[in-house]
Amino acid sequence: MSELHILGVPGSLRKNAYSVGLLHAAVELAPVGTHVEIADIRGFPVFNQDDDTHPPEAVRRFKEKARSADAFLFSINEHNYGLSAAEKNVLDWASRPYGDSVWDGKPAGILSASIGMIGGARAQYELRQSMVFLNMFPINRPEVIVPFAQQKFDTNGRLTDEASRKFISSHLAELARYTRVLQHQP
Amino acid sequence: MSELHILGVPGSLRKNAYSVGLLHAAVELAPVGTHVEIADIRGFPVFNQDDDTHPPEAVRRFKEKARSADAFLFSINEHNYGLSAAEKNVLDWASRPYGDSVWDGKPAGILSASIGMIGGARAQYELRQSMVFLNMFPINRPEVIVPFAQQKFDTNGRLTDEASRKFISSHLAELARYTRVLQHQP
Amino acid sequence: MSELHILGVPGSLRKNAYSVGLLHAAVELAPVGTHVEIADIRGFPVFNQDDDTHPPEAVRRFKEKARSADAFLFSINEHNYGLSAAEKNVLDWASRPYGDSVWDGKPAGILSASIGMIGGARAQYELRQSMVFLNMFPINRPEVIVPFAQQKFDTNGRLTDEASRKFISSHLAELARYTRVLQHQP
Amino acid sequence: MSELHILGVPGSLRKNAYSVGLLHAAVELAPVGTHVEIADIRGFPVFNQDDDTHPPEAVRRFKEKARSADAFLFSINEHNYGLSAAEKNVLDWASRPYGDSVWDGKPAGILSASIGMIGGARAQYELRQSMVFLNMFPINRPEVIVPFAQQKFDTNGRLTDEASRKFISSHLAELARYTRVLQHQP
Repeated sequence: MSELHILGVPGSLRKNAYSVGLLHAAVELAPVGTHVEIADIRGFPVFNQDDDTHPPEAVRRFKEKARSADAFLFSINEHNYGLSAAEKNVLDWASRPYGDSVWDGKPAGILSASIGMIGGARAQYELRQSMVFLNMFPINRPEVIVPFAQQKFDTNGRLTDEASRKFISSHLAELARYTRVLQHQP
Repeated sequence: MSELHILGVPGSLRKNAYSVGLLHAAVELAPVGTHVEIADIRGFPVFNQDDDTHPPEAVRRFKEKARSADAFLFSINEHNYGLSAAEKNVLDWASRPYGDSVWDGKPAGILSASIGMIGGARAQYELRQSMVFLNMFPINRPEVIVPFAQQKFDTNGRLTDEASRKFISSHLAELARYTRVLQHQP
Repeated sequence: MSELHILGVPGSLRKNAYSVGLLHAAVELAPVGTHVEIADIRGFPVFNQDDDTHPPEAVRRFKEKARSADAFLFSINEHNYGLSAAEKNVLDWASRPYGDSVWDGKPAGILSASIGMIGGARAQYELRQSMVFLNMFPINRPEVIVPFAQQKFDTNGRLTDEASRKFISSHLAELARYTRVLQHQP
Repeated sequence: MSELHILGVPGSLRKNAYSVGLLHAAVELAPVGTHVEIADIRGFPVFNQDDDTHPPEAVRRFKEKARSADAFLFSINEHNYGLSAAEKNVLDWASRPYGDSVWDGKPAGILSASIGMIGGARAQYELRQSMVFLNMFPINRPEVIVPFAQQKFDTNGRLTDEASRKFISSHLAELARYTRVLQHQP
């Protein structure tokens, strides 16, 4: 079996964002036969459909990287009970122009973190709703929802909470399994 | 009774966006005793929480304008079954920093349009979910959902569909009524 | 000011349901000038639109009681990430037949509890979506979401968690305030 | 390849429900190598968790039938902008008791119809949210959303709208394809 390339898609531009911290943990915890790489989402302007046929360079680079991924791992945070603008902006840019989406048919995992007790769960279901239109295939279990994130990282931004690390490991294992199922043509 | 100032918040940066066309109709259709003005949302970078205490000039101007509004009228379009990044970006910037949201306690109307048959309805419920956290008070009826928008504007971008115009008029009347109810201290 | 009559609507038929326990706490904690009564939702069959013009006796009694309420207090639990069938069933029966809904125009509070960490929050947003169609006016704050409910009641089913009790008190105070605002005709 | 058994799950108890009409069309349109059977959901009481270990006979029969299905085809209608109580009730009964869900790991299709212009779409996303917890695998495309259903059936309740029939055919073909992918152990 060839190695699976999983592209981590951050949902925050904030330095030291907890959601990005989860992606760093995923890089460490990637199961044998998989590789997790964190995408760069800096430098995107706010999506404007008038520009979707000639996207800026940062978007072009992201789309090129995304095309070679076997699966995506979204790590999101919740702003105002919904997806962050940064996350939705990446989703929208890379889904356009019509017929040139990088998301189509791809499996996906979802991680979220927040400083509150709901851990970004509300944003996860919004992302899943977008995935219906984008024709993505998110896994179901285990959901990785990290509440009270400020208590779960050390001062270097490394995820130290053992329960969360185990959930990320299981999530990646299921994502790898599901990706291989979808890639196999019966 | 003093005149109510309703600030229209566009959800698209696209020139000739249908959602902006709905706002232009609302300006025309504003009932006696109300005034609808369309806010400028151009020039916002993607929200980054690291910058929320020193927002860029375009955000500052929007927030200043928003503070003097009696009510908001969101006009949204749906991207990938969710709120556009542009709309979520305005919501998030103007809700921050903590304690300095422009949305808190304000009534709101919601219009949406799309070229498909669902007319942006999915995005409306996402916006309503954000409004719970933002402590906004959206009206319920009539919902203004304009499907097949490409058939409902003339070549100058003016909304010509009579049914849609009537819904917008009723929506504005209800928004004005509800705003006066909320402003009254019993 | 006359006393406000708040009707508590349970979301579970289970004996000792945590969501019903929250309603019992609300009865105790009702602020001066308000009265909370818990409705009986037993004996409803599953909603069948063919029968909505001649509902069974239990539904008729509920609707009669509901008509005299100034506001509703829903206390819900989450089944399979959504509203319980019991709760949706009450909503649907009492909204019909067309033109004879008991919910129309009424303010509402929402409490939820679950044994998991999300505390029924997902079901709250589904209920709010139904409330748009039903033309109800739910309050925003404070949201009362009680996770790990099994740790927050004593062996008699009394809510003992002080933080949760305070949230319920504040929720009722806001519901009373908002009800008086909506009832006042400016 | 063995024949796939697809169990149609109605969402309405109404005689002549449009959502049931969609299932009858699916029976006719089942592609070669598949068989669609419509489940009986009559006689279920409203779900009560106290009874989930000793469900009534109608529930037991449904669960037995469901266990032998390769995939499910839900056909839902929208009540008050959400899933019908009848549909949620089937979902909840057949997911319990803990560890004895009939839904776990199974692929699913979703059809919806309504007399309004949104065609039950809002209820589809609620059903998808429940499917995350239930660990079901719904297909994405084509979504089958039938608005203005009253215009699309003949007086015998047969779906006559050609576009809707084609969408159902494509939906079933994709459900069959996806079911075979998931059943294959790579």
